[in-house]
Amino acid sequence: MGRIDFDDLSGSLASSTALITDITDRDAYLHDATEERGTPLAIVFAECEDDIVATVDFCRRHNLPLVARGAGTGLSGGCVPIDGGLVISTERMKGLRIDARQRTAVCGPGLITKQLVDAATEYGLTYPPDPASYDESTLGGNVAEGAGGLRCKRFGVTKDYVIGLRAVTADGRILKTGIFCDHQAFGLGDLLIASEGTLAVISEIGVRLIETPAIGTTILAAYGSPEDAAQTVSDITRTGIVPTVLEYIDGDAAACSNEYEKADWLDDRVAAILLIETRRLGEDTEKVKHLCRENRCVYLHVEENAAKADRLWTVRRNVSKAMKALAKYRVSEDVAVPNSRFPVLVAFVAEMNRRSPLRINAYGHAGDGNLHVNFMSMTGSDTELVAMEPEIERLLKRAVELGGTLTGEHGIGLAKRKYLPYEFGVATLDYMKRVKRLFDPANIFNPGKIFPTV
Amino acid sequence: MGRIDFDDLSGSLASSTALITDITDRDAYLHDATEERGTPLAIVFAECEDDIVATVDFCRRHNLPLVARGAGTGLSGGCVPIDGGLVISTERMKGLRIDARQRTAVCGPGLITKQLVDAATEYGLTYPPDPASYDESTLGGNVAEGAGGLRCKRFGVTKDYVIGLRAVTADGRILKTGIFCDHQAFGLGDLLIASEGTLAVISEIGVRLIETPAIGTTILAAYGSPEDAAQTVSDITRTGIVPTVLEYIDGDAAACSNEYEKADWLDDRVAAILLIETRRLGEDTEKVKHLCRENRCVYLHVEENAAKADRLWTVRRNVSKAMKALAKYRVSEDVAVPNSRFPVLVAFVAEMNRRSPLRINAYGHAGDGNLHVNFMSMTGSDTELVAMEPEIERLLKRAVELGGTLTGEHGIGLAKRKYLPYEFGVATLDYMKRVKRLFDPANIFNPGKIFPTV
Repeated sequence: MGRIDFDDLSGSLASSTALITDITDRDAYLHDATEERGTPLAIVFAECEDDIVATVDFCRRHNLPLVARGAGTGLSGGCVPIDGGLVISTERMKGLRIDARQRTAVCGPGLITKQLVDAATEYGLTYPPDPASYDESTLGGNVAEGAGGLRCKRFGVTKDYVIGLRAVTADGRILKTGIFCDHQAFGLGDLLIASEGTLAVISEIGVRLIETPAIGTTILAAYGSPEDAAQTVSDITRTGIVPTVLEYIDGDAAACSNEYEKADWLDDRVAAILLIETRRLGEDTEKVKHLCRENRCVYLHVEENAAKADRLWTVRRNVSKAMKALAKYRVSEDVAVPNSRFPVLVAFVAEMNRRSPLRINAYGHAGDGNLHVNFMSMTGSDTELVAMEPEIERLLKRAVELGGTLTGEHGIGLAKRKYLPYEFGVATLDYMKRVKRLFDPANIFNPGKIFPTV
Repeated sequence: MGRIDFDDLSGSLASSTALITDITDRDAYLHDATEERGTPLAIVFAECEDDIVATVDFCRRHNLPLVARGAGTGLSGGCVPIDGGLVISTERMKGLRIDARQRTAVCGPGLITKQLVDAATEYGLTYPPDPASYDESTLGGNVAEGAGGLRCKRFGVTKDYVIGLRAVTADGRILKTGIFCDHQAFGLGDLLIASEGTLAVISEIGVRLIETPAIGTTILAAYGSPEDAAQTVSDITRTGIVPTVLEYIDGDAAACSNEYEKADWLDDRVAAILLIETRRLGEDTEKVKHLCRENRCVYLHVEENAAKADRLWTVRRNVSKAMKALAKYRVSEDVAVPNSRFPVLVAFVAEMNRRSPLRINAYGHAGDGNLHVNFMSMTGSDTELVAMEPEIERLLKRAVELGGTLTGEHGIGLAKRKYLPYEFGVATLDYMKRVKRLFDPANIFNPGKIFPTV
């Protein structure tokens, strides 16, 4: 391939600082929160939809891959430029218009999730989907990966809040859905959600907001066995209680967080923790406490004070960062299974950990049956690294056998693409690929993601 | 076209009674609840997914249109066989498996919505989307048309409850989504919702159920002007109250229902009614009453007794049937606008009615900004019939101008296909057509619906 002349592109962008061809010291743009990496030819910092159109047109003309990225907090390698080409960052597109009366917001894809939440709070409103990285992750990234979050058990995931999208298609046109135009026919907007930048580049996002929920009651329950904690989760669901948050953290995951925080509150006998938020003044709190005790919890603490409750959540918030910091190499999977099978899945992970040279632990949005299973190589030795892939395969197979899915919220990206046939039938996979080819016939958008080949 | 030999098809169907080629006395299968009609060559009463596959294969081989239908209660002509071909009715596919623990149900497409609700009730659960025809309409029809309903303000529409689909594609394969296999990638399941039988034939539907909500309080408020009623709706939304049901019925629509029921409770001075259900024992009831009074309601009745409340709802339940019975020719539109623009829309309809030779009135799910506007020719005279289309056009244009949509829940079908360009941009329409061609390259599934041409 001959040298590509980027002047053409840079001349058609709104700002003179929008195009970077010297990627030295731009390491952050080569990866996400996985261990995957790639090196782009250039990075475009789009400031408006027209910049995206210009970049797409340029890539189409030069047959270059184009990888869109938000904040790079993803956990599936979705925004890693493995095939070079261009990275387009939408981080400068932070537009925000809140319509408090309609309870809607129109956001730039680069708006940070927490910025939206903070702005909505001033109107007594909130945007519920709260991925653990919500103080860094962008709305565009959330939509592209189909992000979930802690409060999703009660309030739903990203998809449940998106009411419209604008996106730039491979032919450089603007696709408008929902409030931007197409209200329901053929659900084109839904098609883009969780499509991981493989179909179009999202340029604007309409979301609905809800009234800020009252501050709830936090319950911390610790258990002597993961199965007892998981059985509590299953029982809570079965009895029809819908907590705002229902998080599971196994003892080893909690120990990582504890070590990272240099805290020492965790007892060695704790094999699993549940962190639960219920609605205050409801009967739910009493019912939940009862179910925790019935499943032999060894410690139970109910916190009504918001500041103190917030400290209890630290262990959960830091757990992913802690593992990444402690391990030489870490892969985080996010399988999900029906609630009734959650105890089986948790027991399976505990058994894997006992047998494996790796440190394998788990935490996650238990209320949704979503478990983040972490495979950590602490020494980086060959024995450990070689052991990793077969273990991951066993987990993913088991999750699908239990009626579950490869990914609850992180996306397929690079990390899970080769396991797609575990979950998807031949016809379904074929239609997914046909949709990809329809939207992106030249395969310039995020090539290699989701499918190894199209 | 030569005579088609149906023996081939009938031999491959599960039951000997599944194929009907003599359509005498099968008038019900020639239309839906609109005035549109078409005559098929044959009707297949599918009893299982294999019957659907056999029928799709037959139609593909003979290049015959295939129009899927549920109960034919649709209001957009979606299931009318305008191009002949075959009609496939899924009314015999009434399978139902409820998993009370997971709060899910797997339903045949021919299951009647009310059958699902009744069965779920035995477990203390319910399926909330309740189109007005829910005691006749099928789940398959609800999914195909993207049905809404009275309770959708609080609980959401069909799309919010579908957790998986199985569908037969144009090449006779089974596409599985959600709980049947594909959990999120590319939202293929969402793509099928509201696609009106143009992409695939739905063969099985997974839905989630919720705990049966407590019986609420019904509020009936009558107004001297439609604008006052509409302003109450807008105010309720703005203050953040989410009633279970929030229905608007203008005085003339209520008079139709009244006449049909041979009731005489309606006062001539009533220009509009709101029927509202709030959660019992909540503060909402008091706030709603206050807002009704603030907007000059002339009559206000609060009903706690469930049986008595049920009688109040009769006026709403019968309104559509009443108009169809009273008018010589009736077209029902279902535009929707943002809540804050609802008063403007309602005033627009009142003004149309004043000027027009037609009887034009409106009712609908005001809480969602959804207004069913009815254009009734009472005499069937040429003057009236000629006046109809320009009036409908004016309404649809105005709804889109107000930031709204052509259809809140009835679908595009035949009725609104020529108005699509009002709402959809060229690029979006183009992608919708591309999706159609991808799924159905020979255009056998419900040709002519949604798009005049593909």
